[in-house]
Amino acid sequence: MNPNGNLIVGQSGGPTCVINSSLFGIIDEARRRVEIGKIYGAIYGIEGILKRRIVDLDKELPENIEGLKTTPGAALGGCRYMLGSDDPKDEGTKGIFELFDHLGVRYVLYIGGNDSMDTANKIASAAQRMGYPLQVIGVPKTVDNDLVLTHHCPGYGSAAKYVAASVREAGLHAESMRTSEPVTILVTVGRNAGWLPAASALARNGEEEAPHLICFPEVLFSLDRFLADVERVYRRTGSVFIVSGEGLQRKSGDLVVAKRDDTATDPFGHPELGGIGDYLKEEIERRLGLHTRIIRLDICQQSAMHFASLTDQREAELAGRKAIEYALEGRSRHMVTLVVPPGPNYRCITSAVELSAVANRERRLPREWINAQGNHVVPTFLDYVHPLIQGEVKIPLEGGLPVYKRLSKAQGFFRPPDPGPSFTNL
Amino acid sequence: MNPNGNLIVGQSGGPTCVINSSLFGIIDEARRRVEIGKIYGAIYGIEGILKRRIVDLDKELPENIEGLKTTPGAALGGCRYMLGSDDPKDEGTKGIFELFDHLGVRYVLYIGGNDSMDTANKIASAAQRMGYPLQVIGVPKTVDNDLVLTHHCPGYGSAAKYVAASVREAGLHAESMRTSEPVTILVTVGRNAGWLPAASALARNGEEEAPHLICFPEVLFSLDRFLADVERVYRRTGSVFIVSGEGLQRKSGDLVVAKRDDTATDPFGHPELGGIGDYLKEEIERRLGLHTRIIRLDICQQSAMHFASLTDQREAELAGRKAIEYALEGRSRHMVTLVVPPGPNYRCITSAVELSAVANRERRLPREWINAQGNHVVPTFLDYVHPLIQGEVKIPLEGGLPVYKRLSKAQGFFRPPDPGPSFTNL
Repeated sequence: MNPNGNLIVGQSGGPTCVINSSLFGIIDEARRRVEIGKIYGAIYGIEGILKRRIVDLDKELPENIEGLKTTPGAALGGCRYMLGSDDPKDEGTKGIFELFDHLGVRYVLYIGGNDSMDTANKIASAAQRMGYPLQVIGVPKTVDNDLVLTHHCPGYGSAAKYVAASVREAGLHAESMRTSEPVTILVTVGRNAGWLPAASALARNGEEEAPHLICFPEVLFSLDRFLADVERVYRRTGSVFIVSGEGLQRKSGDLVVAKRDDTATDPFGHPELGGIGDYLKEEIERRLGLHTRIIRLDICQQSAMHFASLTDQREAELAGRKAIEYALEGRSRHMVTLVVPPGPNYRCITSAVELSAVANRERRLPREWINAQGNHVVPTFLDYVHPLIQGEVKIPLEGGLPVYKRLSKAQGFFRPPDPGPSFTNL
Repeated sequence: MNPNGNLIVGQSGGPTCVINSSLFGIIDEARRRVEIGKIYGAIYGIEGILKRRIVDLDKELPENIEGLKTTPGAALGGCRYMLGSDDPKDEGTKGIFELFDHLGVRYVLYIGGNDSMDTANKIASAAQRMGYPLQVIGVPKTVDNDLVLTHHCPGYGSAAKYVAASVREAGLHAESMRTSEPVTILVTVGRNAGWLPAASALARNGEEEAPHLICFPEVLFSLDRFLADVERVYRRTGSVFIVSGEGLQRKSGDLVVAKRDDTATDPFGHPELGGIGDYLKEEIERRLGLHTRIIRLDICQQSAMHFASLTDQREAELAGRKAIEYALEGRSRHMVTLVVPPGPNYRCITSAVELSAVANRERRLPREWINAQGNHVVPTFLDYVHPLIQGEVKIPLEGGLPVYKRLSKAQGFFRPPDPGPSFTNL
């Protein structure tokens, strides 16, 4: 049997620890299938397709492909670029399909979050409008866990595990320093959805332990209530450990941010958020006179492969493999989802939903998983998140440090910016 | 043989991953020695001695003592309090020796950094002036590695390992996001001494890898030279990863800090530093137009026990054991030091120096271990630091998270602030 056509795979959005495990699942499964010919990788997702920065993954060393399962970052490069249009007459769209035609591409696999699913959907839609035979399948990825219609997202379990371990460790540190630094605020990823701050609750074995308070984007922020909570915990234990998402909303609908950031913009002119830690610290110190320490986990939440969840790694790989299976079943314009059937033992299988049902939507933490006071989770949430952090990925170590593999290093992946369009290495 | 007297041990300053290993070494060694009677712990270091918050460590469960070797934070509580005087007529000093006399204390073991060694020295000096028979031994502890007269400090190896691993991981993340976030600044502990930013150099296997540039407190900061470096790396690789200590100095002697912090003070009126990441980000974005991401490792550097160095853990324990040995040899007013004899294989033994030679002094990174351009280390430094991060501490895991033990939980360690003086639990 001859192959039906070739495959191109891309990664998009901010990487997670296990985004490369999905890439591994796709490559390894595709290689087992006679229907699929060559496997190409798009460097920097859709940007690579538009700029024709494509690598031939069949030329990669086997140990680099194997190493994907234990390497953080996005091995092919990620991007923050969204395709603007699915109009076949559009210059960008035309270029994409010229490239696909040139490479004989019949399968597009795109690993990313909800913005990326929109881009995948636009590619599929353009193909349909042009009558170009193409199967497009999305593979979910995000530490935020905010994709709809999937039980959870690959990437979330590892981030949750790292956040919980860091809070357990920093909590011990903080309680031992209570006489000089009685309050600690740890800020996690989570601008609109509180899945990661919520996961920090796994850290504690009792009310005295960190985190004492959690601030969720889902709960309207009241400074008075917050300060009353902080004071109450302080009076009880002498040490207050707060975990907060990056984005808290006031009743007015405004985001709570430090004053200094109100007018700040990034180089592209977007208002720059962040600074929730600075804001809370300022208010606690001014109103309660309690010295406050800020901890920001920043992108370590997305890259700390040395303490990734084995469950998460396996599910990310599974999602990649299933994407190939679904494509070969003739499905297109779908995203793989994770399904956890009811039962006493955790088990994760997959299904698929239409990209249009996922694109640009977000799933927030259900209000019933947050306690009545809005400052912690309820046990039902712990039952949900606990299975996702189980097991540790064994990382090769050498000289005291993890050994990671880079794809495409030999293929000129390290290059100056904006080299202009070319068919790299083909 | 009857014991000569009882022992009191305290921890001081910000904890490291392995400060409890030194505590374990002290307790375990003291228990083997007939010369030593009871073992008391001071809660919050010298503050606990002044406020008479003392626990009886002989009452602790064996598994909690054993668990010290794998638990971050300071199990007895740390403090930022320095003893002001060694005058026997001083109220504080009088109280200390009343307590020691009441408890039959003849040995004081104090684990801490250079400020703490000053406090230990003052206690010893007061004892001498009063004719109170007391052996005072200091045990070094700091992630900064800035104590003089010791090859390195317990605590540094684990922090160095965590920093290097995090830079390796975040570096992979950053290079994969270069089209949208070309510059990353990771800020480590290090206000006056660049030992930790320097350790990040362990992360890279070649010039293309993170860290591309390191900013040291020891090198006078020139914004023009820094921006030229950033631009040069950007033009070569399209992705720039910078590691910086918290404190950079200008030629004028001023610290380089973000403008917003110039007038900020903490609740006690001290000027608040920090914000070096914000400052560098602002300048890179304004002058080079390159979007910049900040990563701050904050206290995870001091608490990430889940990836601690086994070498560091063992040496911290050794330092504790040797402190007991030195005290029983009749030494006092000394700090244990680590000595690495020359030779092809790394080996660490101990010696001791006078507290007065260590107190309030700091050791900066030698200029000859920084390259000529002042923006990276030379191989000699890597030879120095590499042995210190070897091996991983095996942490008990349960349910996907590290299991840590708390001392004194049963002894009322969790209590409201400022309970007033009392002989806790005695």
